[in-house]
Amino acid sequence: MAQESLTPELERTVAAAADAAPAVAALDPRDRAAALVAVADALEEHRTELVEIGTTETGLTTARLNGELTRTAVQLRMFADTAIAGDEVDARIDEADTEYALGARPDVRRMHLPLGPILNFAASNFPFAFSVAGGDTASALAAGCPVIVKAHSGHPELSDATAQVVGDALRGAGMPAGTFGLIHGQENGVAVLQDPRIMAGAFTGSIAAGRRLADIAAARPTPIPFFGELGSVNPVFVTTAAVAERADDLASGLVTSVSGSAGQLCTKPGFVFLPEGHGLDAAIASAAENVAEHRMLGPRIASGFARRRDEILAADGVRVIADGGVRLDDDEQGWVTATVVAVSLDDFRRNHDALIEEAFGPLTIIVETPAGTDLASLLPEFFAGNLTGTVHLSAEEAAGSTGNRAELAALVGALSRQVGRVLFNGWPTGVAVTPAMQHGGPWPATTNDSSTSVGSAAIQRFVRPVAYQNAPEAFLPAALHDDNPLGVPQRRSPAGDSTTWGDAARR
Amino acid sequence: MAQESLTPELERTVAAAADAAPAVAALDPRDRAAALVAVADALEEHRTELVEIGTTETGLTTARLNGELTRTAVQLRMFADTAIAGDEVDARIDEADTEYALGARPDVRRMHLPLGPILNFAASNFPFAFSVAGGDTASALAAGCPVIVKAHSGHPELSDATAQVVGDALRGAGMPAGTFGLIHGQENGVAVLQDPRIMAGAFTGSIAAGRRLADIAAARPTPIPFFGELGSVNPVFVTTAAVAERADDLASGLVTSVSGSAGQLCTKPGFVFLPEGHGLDAAIASAAENVAEHRMLGPRIASGFARRRDEILAADGVRVIADGGVRLDDDEQGWVTATVVAVSLDDFRRNHDALIEEAFGPLTIIVETPAGTDLASLLPEFFAGNLTGTVHLSAEEAAGSTGNRAELAALVGALSRQVGRVLFNGWPTGVAVTPAMQHGGPWPATTNDSSTSVGSAAIQRFVRPVAYQNAPEAFLPAALHDDNPLGVPQRRSPAGDSTTWGDAARR
Repeated sequence: MAQESLTPELERTVAAAADAAPAVAALDPRDRAAALVAVADALEEHRTELVEIGTTETGLTTARLNGELTRTAVQLRMFADTAIAGDEVDARIDEADTEYALGARPDVRRMHLPLGPILNFAASNFPFAFSVAGGDTASALAAGCPVIVKAHSGHPELSDATAQVVGDALRGAGMPAGTFGLIHGQENGVAVLQDPRIMAGAFTGSIAAGRRLADIAAARPTPIPFFGELGSVNPVFVTTAAVAERADDLASGLVTSVSGSAGQLCTKPGFVFLPEGHGLDAAIASAAENVAEHRMLGPRIASGFARRRDEILAADGVRVIADGGVRLDDDEQGWVTATVVAVSLDDFRRNHDALIEEAFGPLTIIVETPAGTDLASLLPEFFAGNLTGTVHLSAEEAAGSTGNRAELAALVGALSRQVGRVLFNGWPTGVAVTPAMQHGGPWPATTNDSSTSVGSAAIQRFVRPVAYQNAPEAFLPAALHDDNPLGVPQRRSPAGDSTTWGDAARR
Repeated sequence: MAQESLTPELERTVAAAADAAPAVAALDPRDRAAALVAVADALEEHRTELVEIGTTETGLTTARLNGELTRTAVQLRMFADTAIAGDEVDARIDEADTEYALGARPDVRRMHLPLGPILNFAASNFPFAFSVAGGDTASALAAGCPVIVKAHSGHPELSDATAQVVGDALRGAGMPAGTFGLIHGQENGVAVLQDPRIMAGAFTGSIAAGRRLADIAAARPTPIPFFGELGSVNPVFVTTAAVAERADDLASGLVTSVSGSAGQLCTKPGFVFLPEGHGLDAAIASAAENVAEHRMLGPRIASGFARRRDEILAADGVRVIADGGVRLDDDEQGWVTATVVAVSLDDFRRNHDALIEEAFGPLTIIVETPAGTDLASLLPEFFAGNLTGTVHLSAEEAAGSTGNRAELAALVGALSRQVGRVLFNGWPTGVAVTPAMQHGGPWPATTNDSSTSVGSAAIQRFVRPVAYQNAPEAFLPAALHDDNPLGVPQRRSPAGDSTTWGDAARR
């Protein structure tokens, strides 16, 4: 079934992944977990050299990249625990039942099995955590799937160096050859995505590129799921009472969130709705002056940001609060600080088309709302899906004891319909890597919002359900054995259960 | 955001569903459950009239349609219990943690919320269970989503009558106007599928129609998930020892499974791999003679089956064991019994293209395999994804105590990679409606095999995850409250959990 269009090198990589798939799937989850921990340990052993390459290639600071490498190692270890816990297996056992409501019921047992080879398109802005050994790779390996990473062109050397560390660690841990592969080049990525042996795709990047790849995945003779994490403008809503309570904290928190990593984060707050007359201009300007100049990831991203920033500054009614600028150096690298502008709600509505598109860099737009504005209605009016939405409340409002409680609940409800994560009294950058994290949201935040790309639930993207009916134990996967040797959560439906269906709902 | 292309009537239906969505989502799960039980009770109250309309429109027997109505009522009550149990919510609570491995962790709580309005394309062959009040509708309502059903053209009168019963019951149970709607016509279905207010699609029908609709859903400006349950040929493998043990049971079981509902079931076994010299011809022919003639669903399906049957009978090397025929009556309705043919593995391989496509009707192809055939390798050689795959073993083989255990395990492994349900010593028709059932499989069995269209797990198709970060309890959904007033399963991650990540994998 090899595609003729693959080069010999790509063919070897894809064939190796396909050949490895049954063996990787059949491994005891503890063996997969041990391999993930071995990768985490190896990354930390090679920390100094990897961070050095990364700093040179991306312009991100040593502190940031050290933190990101730590995050990458921690999430590999989290997924090791996730694989052992086996929540994603969702093991269900229906006991055979001669008294079943629809005639005798067989013994049916259902679990989730790994999909097979996954193609993971790495991101530019997280050269460790969303790249070669990042969350997509870790979650797919934890699920029991071989992974092919398409390296991002922004850090090819780091990708090769990381792949060497990952490959060696996996081999050392006894994982089958073909468990992990690395490829370079956009066209190669598209060719592999179209190969029938690839069972799912993951991606972190722009809306345009993500849409193109998602369309390719959907149009294949055999369509596959494609989990793209794309753009987001992350609206923030601040109440009058919150401004009155902590103006300076809000100003400095906003500037820190907008300018961190030169604003090159998919969770950067792009729009902040503040009450008219908020009086934060001076505090914001002052906080922005203290932001150190930061190099952007590369010349293309810098020129794109400069262009987008110019468009926003040229729009009618835009007032500049902090003018971060973009300075190009002799290598055409862009150096930036924070740009903060403000616009009235009326002007925002009039110039919506010019203002709404994401500026990928350290810029945010404050929208000043008149008293009495129905904030909940602004969400469907102005925004499509987003990764996050944030509400800043006063202590009294948070307690639910103020007169505007219903309005605030309506705002939270509207957010929950349009975003993947609703934050209170914080800032959306700095995504915690935890079991309950949700990093994903309605289009165009992601191409598929049934799951997350951060946190342990991300493992669910790479499994599918299979049921076994009247299976002898000799041919049943261990997760479905009655004595539960893997200790996974099992949901048993005892014989006789159907006799009470519907009763709980009758009052 | 109304589309101009919708007729006024469609616009009213879609607008009503969109307007109802937040209210339906906000209902206490017990209220949704009570509404589902009310629909189940109402269907049973109107049983006689509904079954009468259905028999006339579809040619299915009164016994079959009575059973199907009971199944429909039972699954509505099962989904009532499912909604109350709240497994699909997958509530997760990360406790805030100042000692977290990556710096202080906020309080993060994640649950699944309803997607919003669902468009459900009803099936021809299950006028109750996969139609107006069927599993797709029941699971979407249980999830908290309004539903618009596109009626199947094969039973329009029954669809209208059922919709009247469903609508009255939902209104009587206090559900918001717009919770349920019915539309007719293929073009209308496509127009509504393209409407931005529709958040997901469900479908049961042919591969061609399902692919067309899935492509439309994927190509929308805002792509949506589309859960199509399409075609399947359901391969069955019978060992030599199983034939030796119970030849007559196998012959009669096969004929019953192939001919039930005139073979118009997506789980009908289309291919049966039997050892050469199985000696079952006489028993199969005799069982087939006892099958009563059955009317097919409609003239188009009958003529399609007659054509496909002729093609198969004309293929090289095909031997007729039981010749069911197709008799057309004066209304061009087709009447059928079971057709069973056999072909050698060599001829099957040679004429694969002519034989492999599904025959939607009471026909099965026995493929006779020489001793020593590697059965596991036949699956990827001949088949794409399927809803089911079946293995018939002898008692000794099932115990795992025979010399061919490894081969059989390889066959089961190959099946688990290509189908959604693996059966042992049974027949795939007659899908149990239970918590562990899986009805779905890799393309082209379904357009999206991350879930099921039968069984309580089907509710998971219509929800998406949302996280709340540092949310005051006043603005947090009840399923995520610490005191858990809804009693849903909550997965708590205590502070300090990250300190041990990876430890369990170190040996």
